[in-house]
Amino acid sequence: MQKENTVFVGNKPVMNYVLAVVTQFNNGASEVAIKARGKAISRAVDTAEIALNRFLDNVVKKQIVTSTEVIETDSGKTNVSSIEIVLAQNK
Amino acid sequence: MQKENTVFVGNKPVMNYVLAVVTQFNNGASEVAIKARGKAISRAVDTAEIALNRFLDNVVKKQIVTSTEVIETDSGKTNVSSIEIVLAQNK
Repeated sequence: MQKENTVFVGNKPVMNYVLAVVTQFNNGASEVAIKARGKAISRAVDTAEIALNRFLDNVVKKQIVTSTEVIETDSGKTNVSSIEIVLAQNK
Repeated sequence: MQKENTVFVGNKPVMNYVLAVVTQFNNGASEVAIKARGKAISRAVDTAEIALNRFLDNVVKKQIVTSTEVIETDSGKTNVSSIEIVLAQNK
């Protein structure tokens, strides 16, 4: 089975996540999944775009999936959107 | 050729855009594209998820594409990420 690495994008500067993605490919990963929820979704897209355009050769967007997750909070359950962008080595 | 309708997501409340998408399907559209740039990307994902989960039957996510657009500003050119989520009637 193919090893899959995941980078969770949150509220840090976008270059932190770009570096994490690039590092995983440089360490030999064949695929890296970039995941985010809520407002961090736009930063996840930025992460993928910057990594692909500026740092990664021969890597492509393999899949983009969006979904809705149910989160438990103090005031009950709430829905939050999420995204998963899978980048993969182009064989 | 298939008629394609587009909803551009900006900074208004998300339900405005959900209503626009649902209205286009109710008016007979076979496909609706939801587009956004920059920080509005997360709201575009919310729009698609809410429209699909709460309002639209027999409609599916057909395609999700992200890209980088070059924008001209007063201080020169800058890159901004964009997303296009295409929803389509499930035939």
